This record gives sequence, structure tokens and C-alpha cells, in this order.
Amino acid sequence: MDTRLFTFVGGETGSWRIASMRTIMGEPLAHAARLEVVNGSFVPEIKSASWLLRGVTSNERYVTHEEQQLLMAKQPRLGRPEATCAALIPIRKTASWWSLAQDERRRIFEESSSHVTTGIKYLPAVARRLHHCRDLGENEPFDFLTWFEYAPADSSAFDELVAELRASEEWKYVDREIDIRVARDGA
Amino acid sequence: MDTRLFTFVGGETGSWRIASMRTIMGEPLAHAARLEVVNGSFVPEIKSASWLLRGVTSNERYVTHEEQQLLMAKQPRLGRPEATCAALIPIRKTASWWSLAQDERRRIFEESSSHVTTGIKYLPAVARRLHHCRDLGENEPFDFLTWFEYAPADSSAFDELVAELRASEEWKYVDREIDIRVARDGA
Repeated sequence: MDTRLFTFVGGETGSWRIASMRTIMGEPLAHAARLEVVNGSFVPEIKSASWLLRGVTSNERYVTHEEQQLLMAKQPRLGRPEATCAALIPIRKTASWWSLAQDERRRIFEESSSHVTTGIKYLPAVARRLHHCRDLGENEPFDFLTWFEYAPADSSAFDELVAELRASEEWKYVDREIDIRVARDGA
Repeated sequence: MDTRLFTFVGGETGSWRIASMRTIMGEPLAHAARLEVVNGSFVPEIKSASWLLRGVTSNERYVTHEEQQLLMAKQPRLGRPEATCAALIPIRKTASWWSLAQDERRRIFEESSSHVTTGIKYLPAVARRLHHCRDLGENEPFDFLTWFEYAPADSSAFDELVAELRASEEWKYVDREIDIRVARDGA
């Protein structure tokens, strides 16, 4: 199926084991033991879902041509056999973030917070896919779902990456964030 | 209801009379005699709909702080009693547009095509609301729905506005566009 829509389902079944769910900011998500990642909106196989989060991949919102070239040269694909650890990090940003003009958001995102520069430091260890939720329609609980995959040996590097971003000016505009770490069975 | 989602329904009923539907580029839309504009996704009252187009209002994608201030100072509200003419212009942009980096799209949008500068020339005559469809999920027929309201005396100014934009570099990336003109009964 060729679709930009992805559904993340937390529940009692799913191909990823949830190792931890940590509420960084705002309201928690309900407990779940397993996670399934589904391409599309049709979710037939999930029993006893605790939550279901949807997002679409989309065009770049802040990245310049030069940054895009750097990212494309260094970023690994998802699904590497050695990347048995993953993280799903849903975040929501404040109304004051969304009311800023494009140049103001870009300045905070990169010139102040080095979002792209920080991400590039952790390539090619960490593969990433960003999903947008804010414009799906009505009443989505988050604005973004970011999915990361990495090898167990890169877990502490991944911890550094998210800590650097959370200390940035950009994160002052985050009012809900959940950090969900998952692993393949046996990893 | 407080929702950013709007539904435009073409059919046999609706509060706006469709005066013309002109296919500028790409596949036409089916004929409709009337248009209804609904806030939200719940569309209870429309009989015999020919088409139904959905979009959400969202944050600015290209506008700088300075441009945002100019727009907010000059742009009129929707629903002015004298604005008995309106236009719904659904457009879709090409895959090559969406794969460009943010700075490349901004350059084409404003530095080359003067999209904001052109729009501001026609303020406060023309009120406007932009709806995004591309990230609603799957298989939307358009990327944007723009709704414009103006007085009958400003119809030729509105024609100039859309002609200027269609002659721009930005419009080389438009591969589907329908120009739907509507009027209040009696106008």
C-alpha cells in the first residue's frame, strides 16, 4: 500500500515490546505492553488497544536545501536488522508556537536550537521518520510522532540526542511529550 | 463548534449559487449548482452532493513576521454583508514542489512569485481563508482550498489577482486547479 499515513497502536499485541513509557511533559498515555506500527489507517489485527496514534509523513517544514543534502547523504533507512531498539516520541507544541511566523519558527528551530545540526551528529546511528498529526483533522492528541530506530549499543547516544533537544529553546514550546522505548523480542 | 476543519459541498442545495466552474488545469470537478460551506466534518443537510472537499486551517508556512504583521493590519474578516461574491479555488501542486526544501519553496513563493506582495495589493477588498488538505490523511484530490469573499464591484480586481498568481513561477508547480465562482442569491 502506498500511503503516507501511519498508525501506532499500543496494546497487548504488536511486534515491538514496550520497555518503558515516560511522561516528559503533560498528560500521560495509558499503559501498554506492546506496540504495532501499521502503514495506513486500516488496523485489523490489534486486540485490546490502549491507544492509537496516527500521523502522516509530509514535506520538510524548516530544512534548507543544504541541510536536506546533508541529511540525505547520512541518514540510514528504517528496518536495519541490527536496529532492534526503537523509540516513539509523540509531542505537542503550544498555541504560541503555532501562531509564530515561519521565519520566527525557523530561527528557534535551527539558529537557536540546532535541531538539524544535533540530529546530524547522531547519523548514521539513528534512523528517523517524522509523522505530522496536527493537520489530520480534528482533536488529535499530539502534533508530531517521531519514530527512531537504533542498535542497542547506540542507546546512550540516543539518550544524549533527546536530552540535547529537550534543553533547547524549541522545547520551551512543547507542552506534551511521551518517551516510549521499545525493543524487538530477544533484544 | 471550535474546529479548524471545513467542508465544502457542491450539489443541488447550499447557501451559495455557483455562477461558474472553470477547470484551469488537470481533471475537472463534476457539475454542481449550489455550494455549502460547513465548519466541521459533520455534513447533515446536503442532498445530492456532487463533491465534498475538506481542508483545515493551519499555521503559516512561508510568511515572515513582517509580512504577517502587514497581513493582519490589512486583511478583512469573512462574512462582510457587502461581500456577496466568493470564489473557491482548489489546487494541487506537483511531487517536485513537495520534494523541494523549505528555503527553495519560500524563494519561489515570494522572492520569485510575490505571492504575499500580490495578495496584499488587493487588501482590504478581498477576504481570504486558506485550508490545507495534503496532510488530512490519504487520497485527497487537492492540496489546498482557498476561499475568497469580495463585493461585486471588486470582481475584476479579483480576476487580476488570480491572473497575476497564475503567471508566476510558483504556478508552474500547480497541476490541478478549478476556479469556482459563487454568489449570494440576488447578488
